[in-house]
Amino acid sequence: MTTDNHRYCVIMCGGVGSRFWPYSRSNRPKQFIDFLGTGRTLLQMCYDRILPLVPKNNIIVVTNAMYAALVKEQLPDIDPEHILLEPCRRNTAPCIAWAANHIYAADPQASMIVTPSDHLITNEAEFVNRLRAGFEFVETHDALLTLGIKPTRPETGYGYIQIGKEVEPGILKVKTFTEKPDLELAKVFVESGEFFWNSGIFLWKASDILNAFTALAPDLAGEFERGKGIFATPAETQFINDHFPACPSISVDFAIMEKASNVYVECVDFGWSDLGTWSALYDNSAQNPEGNVTQNCNVMTYDSTGNIFAVRNEKLVVVSGLHDYIVADADDVLLVCPKSEEQRIKQIVNDVQGRFDEKYL
Amino acid sequence: MTTDNHRYCVIMCGGVGSRFWPYSRSNRPKQFIDFLGTGRTLLQMCYDRILPLVPKNNIIVVTNAMYAALVKEQLPDIDPEHILLEPCRRNTAPCIAWAANHIYAADPQASMIVTPSDHLITNEAEFVNRLRAGFEFVETHDALLTLGIKPTRPETGYGYIQIGKEVEPGILKVKTFTEKPDLELAKVFVESGEFFWNSGIFLWKASDILNAFTALAPDLAGEFERGKGIFATPAETQFINDHFPACPSISVDFAIMEKASNVYVECVDFGWSDLGTWSALYDNSAQNPEGNVTQNCNVMTYDSTGNIFAVRNEKLVVVSGLHDYIVADADDVLLVCPKSEEQRIKQIVNDVQGRFDEKYL
Repeated sequence: MTTDNHRYCVIMCGGVGSRFWPYSRSNRPKQFIDFLGTGRTLLQMCYDRILPLVPKNNIIVVTNAMYAALVKEQLPDIDPEHILLEPCRRNTAPCIAWAANHIYAADPQASMIVTPSDHLITNEAEFVNRLRAGFEFVETHDALLTLGIKPTRPETGYGYIQIGKEVEPGILKVKTFTEKPDLELAKVFVESGEFFWNSGIFLWKASDILNAFTALAPDLAGEFERGKGIFATPAETQFINDHFPACPSISVDFAIMEKASNVYVECVDFGWSDLGTWSALYDNSAQNPEGNVTQNCNVMTYDSTGNIFAVRNEKLVVVSGLHDYIVADADDVLLVCPKSEEQRIKQIVNDVQGRFDEKYL
Repeated sequence: MTTDNHRYCVIMCGGVGSRFWPYSRSNRPKQFIDFLGTGRTLLQMCYDRILPLVPKNNIIVVTNAMYAALVKEQLPDIDPEHILLEPCRRNTAPCIAWAANHIYAADPQASMIVTPSDHLITNEAEFVNRLRAGFEFVETHDALLTLGIKPTRPETGYGYIQIGKEVEPGILKVKTFTEKPDLELAKVFVESGEFFWNSGIFLWKASDILNAFTALAPDLAGEFERGKGIFATPAETQFINDHFPACPSISVDFAIMEKASNVYVECVDFGWSDLGTWSALYDNSAQNPEGNVTQNCNVMTYDSTGNIFAVRNEKLVVVSGLHDYIVADADDVLLVCPKSEEQRIKQIVNDVQGRFDEKYL
């Protein structure tokens, strides 16, 4: 299995998950929580579904320095050298550029999956099959491959990918990337059959993405070119701490994918959700006969329906006469908010920061 | 001030406060909480208003053994020998019989106030004046004196006292005690001007209440008579641990006050509430312009009115779209319940006990 040994996975888990505040807190964001009450955190679920695809020792986790202990605790099998600690937040492009340099330095033939750590995939067998096909494609083509999810509803919260010509079964040239559409446009997209959700899961050879950075994001690439000979050596940490903060905060979609000419989409349908909203979490969780989602926490309800309870640990929640609310509690913060007003949470988090600084974030 | 030196106060603080569960928990009931957000617990507020009435060293606290540390922490000035620890709960009659024996053994001339620790009195100057008058009355009469509160509404949650002939200004013979009336009857009571709320605050000489126990509750009195010579000595603790559990669980109202012929009522009006219900707490607390009661806890509200928040410590509570609810949180329990359904809480506590035993009580 020579090929397998050159296959890598980069799990990005530096996000703060503020849309799920306070269930997701800055000291323990969404990906580090048993978010669905399954007994495994989202990061652990991500790791589990990657294991059939790449050698265990080829899994790299990129996270913020403050989450080092959480990653080690939740993924004890990962060699600490494979946990890349960002000294500050800089969105996905610098994260991926670093990880690609790190992997390429150790293995110039490497191909790699890049995946967020906080998504849900319900059909893991299909996920593995399609990712294997993706690996084979990028290993034999100069290609940046993104996974496009077959849309199931006119979602306005996602970016869409318009497909072009099919080059292999299920793998097509990308025509355009489209930012979040309004509902009218989203309906047209879904009905056309030509648009897929942009999942944020990518495959490519390390060499191909590094070439793309050099060509399309030269400033960013330049920061990392100074580290030639340093990646995957003991000096890497100091180099990153010195130079990573200088990187622009920019997404890989904007820096590379929307500009590159060698971008392809693998159209997949394996039960995906980015779990990006409380509604998405509610929809993807088991509801009890009263339509409450309790995620295995201790909840007792009286005359209460359609609620979602997101509560950590051994806390007991008792509610009476509550319908269609979010009840989220973690440590020293409690939020009670109608599900229909979840877009207000962003404002609330801002207000909390304005009043209490970082204390309750 | 010879007279003052024979004046004592017994503060009863062994209750569990289950009507305010989970804000009041069995490990820290209502009287040990800064219930009104004033910076002092109800027990401390009770102690503070007694101080002008009796020498500090004549204040006795009777509580359950499990609350010994809380009492010492909250009332550091009290000599530990003045904290009487009940080995089990036996309602007010055994509690008062013990305290009276304890005080009488040290001072046969003693007169005493007996007061719950978890009530609110807003006009403390008037309280002090009326209690001084009460002391003078019981010190010069063979009398069991109860404080009757001038009713301000047809409350159905309290017992009422029907007044008889006035024997001194503001002190009258009791005609009858009446259990909690229905609303119709309560209205008649209030309009008649002849009925007062039974406050549960008493004054008497230690000798008079002990005589009453002997005459009217001989079984109970008998348990304590075995301890003659032991009260207020180092052997008292062991004696109580051995004999207190054998006492019947009975209230002093039922055991003595409703039967004795020498019962008087001092009619007072000093802003009293037993803080016995969430509604009483809400009514006696400062409401912000949205009609929310926050008791100085960290609460941020959006489109929310008429709620009461009872949350300990540094917890931040954020609510949106919530009207007229109780939000109570302590440690590992959260309750959200409409104020109009607070009578459901008793059932909830039963359900919690049935499902989790003592864990969340």
